[in-house]
This record gives sequence, structure tokens and C-alpha cells, in this order.
Amino acid sequence: MRAAVFEGPGNIRIEQVPDPEVELDTDAVVRVAAAGICGSDLWSYRGYGNRQPGSRIGHEFIGVVADVGAEVRTVRRGDHVISPFTWSDGTCEYCLAGLHTSCVDGGVFGEPSSDGGQGEAVRVPHADGTLVVVPPALHGADAQLLPLTDVLATGHHAARSAGVGYGRTVAVVGDGAVGLCAVIASRRLGAERIVVIGHHEERVDLARRLGATDVVCARGQEAVEAAISLTGGAHCVLECVGVQASLDTAIAVARDGAVIGYVGVPHLVERLDLGLLFSRNIGVRGGVTPARAYIPELMADVVTGALDASAVFDLVVDLEGAPDGYVAMDTRKAVKVRITP
Amino acid sequence: MRAAVFEGPGNIRIEQVPDPEVELDTDAVVRVAAAGICGSDLWSYRGYGNRQPGSRIGHEFIGVVADVGAEVRTVRRGDHVISPFTWSDGTCEYCLAGLHTSCVDGGVFGEPSSDGGQGEAVRVPHADGTLVVVPPALHGADAQLLPLTDVLATGHHAARSAGVGYGRTVAVVGDGAVGLCAVIASRRLGAERIVVIGHHEERVDLARRLGATDVVCARGQEAVEAAISLTGGAHCVLECVGVQASLDTAIAVARDGAVIGYVGVPHLVERLDLGLLFSRNIGVRGGVTPARAYIPELMADVVTGALDASAVFDLVVDLEGAPDGYVAMDTRKAVKVRITP
Repeated sequence: MRAAVFEGPGNIRIEQVPDPEVELDTDAVVRVAAAGICGSDLWSYRGYGNRQPGSRIGHEFIGVVADVGAEVRTVRRGDHVISPFTWSDGTCEYCLAGLHTSCVDGGVFGEPSSDGGQGEAVRVPHADGTLVVVPPALHGADAQLLPLTDVLATGHHAARSAGVGYGRTVAVVGDGAVGLCAVIASRRLGAERIVVIGHHEERVDLARRLGATDVVCARGQEAVEAAISLTGGAHCVLECVGVQASLDTAIAVARDGAVIGYVGVPHLVERLDLGLLFSRNIGVRGGVTPARAYIPELMADVVTGALDASAVFDLVVDLEGAPDGYVAMDTRKAVKVRITP
Repeated sequence: MRAAVFEGPGNIRIEQVPDPEVELDTDAVVRVAAAGICGSDLWSYRGYGNRQPGSRIGHEFIGVVADVGAEVRTVRRGDHVISPFTWSDGTCEYCLAGLHTSCVDGGVFGEPSSDGGQGEAVRVPHADGTLVVVPPALHGADAQLLPLTDVLATGHHAARSAGVGYGRTVAVVGDGAVGLCAVIASRRLGAERIVVIGHHEERVDLARRLGATDVVCARGQEAVEAAISLTGGAHCVLECVGVQASLDTAIAVARDGAVIGYVGVPHLVERLDLGLLFSRNIGVRGGVTPARAYIPELMADVVTGALDASAVFDLVVDLEGAPDGYVAMDTRKAVKVRITP
């Protein structure tokens, strides 16, 4: 079969790779209907981290079950399924607590010794603990379902980590796909005011259409002052970038007593001024998103039409076009790319 | 009147100072019945921070109202009162939200331009928003009431910040007075298991008498391994010291998904590895304790006898003995000192 392979920074190729097969009785093989390119894939593409040339890439995918191992009980061949970006056994103490990303036998798709999501098919370990079956009403709703694998779940995790709820004033730092999904999630959770802070006119405009009540299109101190003047400081700050400048902005726009929900994988973050957080009772919560825990409740709202994050995908390519998709995201011509193998 | 004055590192003297008077209509003057020496006073004594020689010191005190300004409504001359270690107006958005330490017109006793608590009397700004009247049943219960001004409220803040509750496994890092109070608070909030990590035999023994179910008397990696083997990682970690080593220990003994409640004023903390917290979904919450918000609920349990943190004071001195009290704490001959002017 064909799949995207990372051949080094700036170099994604579509190559012939072995067809995935059921290896363990708990595995499933999923034929991919749609895959996403994630901001964290882009970090690899840009040469950060230690991804090895020749490795599969991608961890956002939905599809149809092609085969299952003998012990798999909850999914069958032909089921339409959503996969979170990590697999998990579904039975350990962490999975039972809703923190599937800390599963004692879990892992991340597209990392060494696993299949990447950007290809024609994927071997899914622990199929019962990982895959969520899609109801018939949503068959074919790939654009609405794909965000649940990672980006929308991540925006939701930021919001939940920061305690977003009814009446809260929320500041979303970042106007990328995660930031946009954080806006959607905050609106869904009942926030009264949602200020998005970005610096791309068309993205903050999109944020407004997705539920932001106010937008700040600026950087650094100018952005902070604008957000503070709009809100007096946010009860909940959703840090959706993961670099030093965005973290500094997040702290600066927080109201005393606020919680910062952070979901941007930390890159180039060198300082977190604990003394400043201490004096203002500002908390920091978040981390890698347990998407598996959130997919059922999010999907319930997708079914009714109340929740639709499809707009974060503004470019669709086929598998051969995936390398161009990376270029488009790298040059900011696209917010996020959907691949239809 | 007489009061403790900081004359430089290692040098506390009892000196004659002006009698406090009502200066604003919202002030009260409180004659001190008991005052505490706080761990943060000890940091000053040891030469950290920028406390100026000649300045008053101390911020933990209870007493009897000697005078009130014309606008004071909720306390009267002769009332027995508890003062939190900060004053607050009681009416701003932060006070109304229970975060009195961020009061727009608040301050800390013993800081420049305010009276210190270690003296015969104290001018209390915003008496209505600051002081809590003690019911007759507790008149004279100074040893039980004094902890509410700061140290017990702080242990409670750590526990609340970390989400301590029924069935939780709690690790308390630190066997000083705050750590001991964190044990008491965790037991009160229903924790199932409370492991205290310290390195003073007699203090961890006291912790056990106060409610710790397990004690670890060790440092560094040895302490971490012992705590992990006892708990498998704590749901809630209460960081009650505020130095790099204690913070590192707190992170190491946390279960994935845990929250670290931190209330030790950060000193000498140079790194907080956000990437590590991210991968394990470990949150960090806490800060300076809004004692005023907690005193009523804590006092309610002191009245019934359910809550008694008097044991954290293991040395009582008169005002002239306050300098010796500092020496006793500095040399770890005392956990915490109560001064009875």
C-alpha cells in the first residue's frame, strides 16, 4: 500500500510500504477514509524533535475496519470508526480514569514501531480500547468526524483543563487549528465571553464565525493590553501554541486566580515564572489530550449538528498531494489539511 | 508599645515603636493575644528577599479589638478576632470570588507601611473585610485559633488547590508546619491515604499522629521511590516547601493526571519542566493563600473540636523571647513558635 513517509526535514514522500496486518489478537486494521496533518507533524517537518528519516508519519485518521483479531469484541469488519491519535488498552487504571494517554500499554500513531495515519491503512493495537464506532447517521461525515481524532478533542482538553464553563471569560491564545477548536469547545461549554488572540486576520475572522465574541489581532505587549482592556483578565486561558511567547502571553492575560489550560506541545519553552504564578494564584493544567475519553461526548453533539469543527480544514488533498499539504501548512497557506487517501 | 523589629539577617530585636492608632475610618486596632513566626519570616531572617533593616515583622496574629474607625460595622471594641495574614477590602471582585490575596486594596502585614503582627498591637486596615470575630466558645483558645491566620489555611489551600477529596491518595512534600497542616487538611477533606515525605524523624512521627497514614523519612530519589512504592503515585501532591528539590520531588511522586498544589513561597526555584508535566498531564495550582476566605469554615470545625492544629506550635515564648524563637526555628529546635505578648 501507499503511505506518507518522513524522509527528513522538509521532505515528506508517498512511498510503497508493507500492508498492515493483524499481528496480535487485539489488533484491528483500519482502511483510512480521511487523515489530518497535525501541528505536531509540522514540528517534525520543520526539523524539531528526533523523528528518524524513513519513518511513517501522521496520527489523525478515521476509516473503516478491514480486519480484526480474534479477541476484538467491540468493533467488526465494515464498521466506520474514529481513532484517537493514541491507542490504549481501555482497561488499565489510567484508561478507567479517562487519561488514556497515560495507558500502561498505549502509544502514539506515527511514532516508531507503529503505523502512521497518513496512508491507506493502519494497524490499530488494542482495537477495543482505542476505536470508537461511528453511528450510521454520520457515515460519510468525514469532515465533521476527523477533528475528533485530535484537534477538536485538544481544544476541548484545553477548555476542560482551564475550567471553562457557564459565565466564564475565556482567552484563547493562538489562531491555529487548535485555537479555533478551543473557541468552538469554549462556546459549547457555555463561556460567556471568548477572546481569541492571534495575528492572522483571516484566522481570527474565522474564530469569530466559530464563536469568539472578541478578537485581538496583534502580538506581544500590544496583544496583552488589548485582551486585558477587553476582559479585565480572563478566568480561563487556553494556551494553544506551545512556545515561550504564547505562554508569556497566556500568563499576562490571565485574571488572578485563573487557570491556564495548555495543550500546545511545549517547544522552545525555557522559563515558567513560578513566583509570578504564585503571587497571582494562577494555575497551569493540561498536557497531551486523552482524546479517547472525549470522543463519545463530542460525537454525540456532532450527530445532532450542534458541533461542527470541519471549518478548521481549509485544504483537502489526496494521498499523493500530502507533501503539498505540508508545504501549504508550513507556509501558512492552509490552517489544516485533510487527506483523503 | 513593644514590637519585634527586623534589624538585618539573623537580627530580630524587641524595640519601642509608636502605638498604632485608627488612621482611616475603616481601620481597627487589635491588641495582640498571640502571634506566630512563619516560615516566610524565617526566609527574611536568613537574609533572603529584600526586607529592610528597621522594619516591623510578622503577619500571623489574633487578639482583641481595642479601637475601630467610624465606618467599621462588623467588629467592635472588645471583640475577639482572627486576622488573616493579609488585609482585604472584602468588596472587590477578587474578595467576592474568595481570592482576598488579590484584593485591589489589600496588603500583607509586616510589609513596608504596615504594622507587623509580632508586637503588642496592630493597625488593621479594612477591618470589616479582614477580621473574623471569634465566638465566645473559643475565647482563650489561642493555640487552636492562631493556625487559622496562615499556616492551617495554607495547608488547606494546598489541599484545595490539588483537589484533595474523598478517596484520594495524597502525598505531602515537607514536614514543616505547613506540611503538617496539609496533612490535617487532607484528612479533614476525606483523603483515603496521606503520605508525608520529610526528613526529620520527630516531625514525620507528629505527621502520623495528625493523620498521615504513611511516612517517608528520606530525601531525593530514595524518598521518591519509597513514596511511589507506597502509593503507585499520588492523585494529589501538596508541595509545602517551595524549593527546587521539593518541587522536583512533588512532580516525581505524582500519578499521571495529578495536580500539584503548591503553597511554599518559591525560593531558589529555577526550573519547572513543562514538557514533563505535559506528557503526564500533571497540573500545578496554588499560590499565596486567601486565608480570609477559609477562616469561617475552618473555625466552624475548631468550634466543634473536629479541627485542632495547635500541635504545630511546639514552642511558646513571650514577646521578649521572640528573638530566641527565631533562633529555635532557624536551628530546627522548634517547628513553629507562638508568641504571647
